[in-house]
Amino acid sequence: MSQSVPTAAVLVIGDEILSGRTKDKNAGFIAERMTSLGIDLKEVRVVSDDKAAIIEAVQALSERWSVVFTTGGIGPTHDDITAESVAEAFGVKAPVDPRAAAILQEHYDRTGREMTEARLRMARIPEGAELIENAVSGAPGFSIRNVHVMAGVPSIMQSMLDALTPHLPTSVVMLSETIEARRGETDISAMLEAVQERYDDVQIGSYPYHDGERYTTRIVARSRDGNRLSEAVGDLMAGLAGL
Amino acid sequence: MSQSVPTAAVLVIGDEILSGRTKDKNAGFIAERMTSLGIDLKEVRVVSDDKAAIIEAVQALSERWSVVFTTGGIGPTHDDITAESVAEAFGVKAPVDPRAAAILQEHYDRTGREMTEARLRMARIPEGAELIENAVSGAPGFSIRNVHVMAGVPSIMQSMLDALTPHLPTSVVMLSETIEARRGETDISAMLEAVQERYDDVQIGSYPYHDGERYTTRIVARSRDGNRLSEAVGDLMAGLAGL
Repeated sequence: MSQSVPTAAVLVIGDEILSGRTKDKNAGFIAERMTSLGIDLKEVRVVSDDKAAIIEAVQALSERWSVVFTTGGIGPTHDDITAESVAEAFGVKAPVDPRAAAILQEHYDRTGREMTEARLRMARIPEGAELIENAVSGAPGFSIRNVHVMAGVPSIMQSMLDALTPHLPTSVVMLSETIEARRGETDISAMLEAVQERYDDVQIGSYPYHDGERYTTRIVARSRDGNRLSEAVGDLMAGLAGL
Repeated sequence: MSQSVPTAAVLVIGDEILSGRTKDKNAGFIAERMTSLGIDLKEVRVVSDDKAAIIEAVQALSERWSVVFTTGGIGPTHDDITAESVAEAFGVKAPVDPRAAAILQEHYDRTGREMTEARLRMARIPEGAELIENAVSGAPGFSIRNVHVMAGVPSIMQSMLDALTPHLPTSVVMLSETIEARRGETDISAMLEAVQERYDDVQIGSYPYHDGERYTTRIVARSRDGNRLSEAVGDLMAGLAGL
């Protein structure tokens, strides 16, 4: 089954994330959506507003994974270079797209503003791309090959991801069960490993955290096969009880 | 000046981040620390608990940037494969390290617990690495070449980063000024670009956001030269006033 599971990557574009000034929320949001669709998110990258860095990351990620989502850098200012960089990554140009220009014109007409040269910048779309609807602020994102280019403002990104979702590949959803072990990770590691060895179709992870009083462990078991997941969780519970 | 500015990358290791279940806070914390040290954080990657993925990312990032920080995957369980993966990335082994074993023994003696095989797993350190002190829970991180391997639990990661900080390269700190434009991004983009063209040693970024009523723009100007930054900010303020 696993060879047919679609995979995904997220490319976050923006100096403001790398400076620490803005905390990225888009990758986590996309991660949750991928899990709900049964898509395996395999990699996230954050790069700066630098054309060479964007091109290299787009090429590497689009070759490797089924779908790629980018966020950021599609606005109207000089540091918004995502559209031209993605176009260059695929060897095409990014001229003003008549469909996108019409959408912008309609948006500005409706909101009583004028089309300007700066606003028209947001209609530059790589040749051969499909538009992604932006229900929030007009200016569309776009999809080219397996790369979906979205805005960086979270509310707009989320609206674009909603528009994209019906067109994404899906798969049997990864099911997960969480067990609060109430034990330190070192106390349970041998038991976890023994259970893991019996279930190659269940991924067993352990996550230590401080509950305010002491370090304890959250055990997460994940599988696309509900029966196997239940069996593994039963073994884990029995293993914990026997410690 | 710019060629002497140290650069950094962060590699976050963990399926729990990619599933969206846990939201990473370590990259943002490290980003802020880098900014305060004058180090340019250039790239963040998140990869799964997969040896090949970790090895490839460690090799790519350590070749490209001055320093690399990894978080996650150095605990005592079967899915903690960072130490062996980093060792393999550099072609060395990761046996139990006598210094790390002594630290763990002392920690468990002091807290009234016993050394076990699982706990001793956390003393496996790549050959040639230096240890990073863990003031929270004993088990050390390590530095090999330009790669600093830290825990994933935020409080422990922060303690390790504190221990590392005196040993990191530093540079003239990047100064920044923020201007609340109270204008939409499309209204100010031509002005921003004109100012940017006059200052190649100042980075001018613009970040649209919704203030609860409408989309507005935060302008951030950054430079290592305080005089040039002040001049650019003056030009930006004059430009805003003239719109």
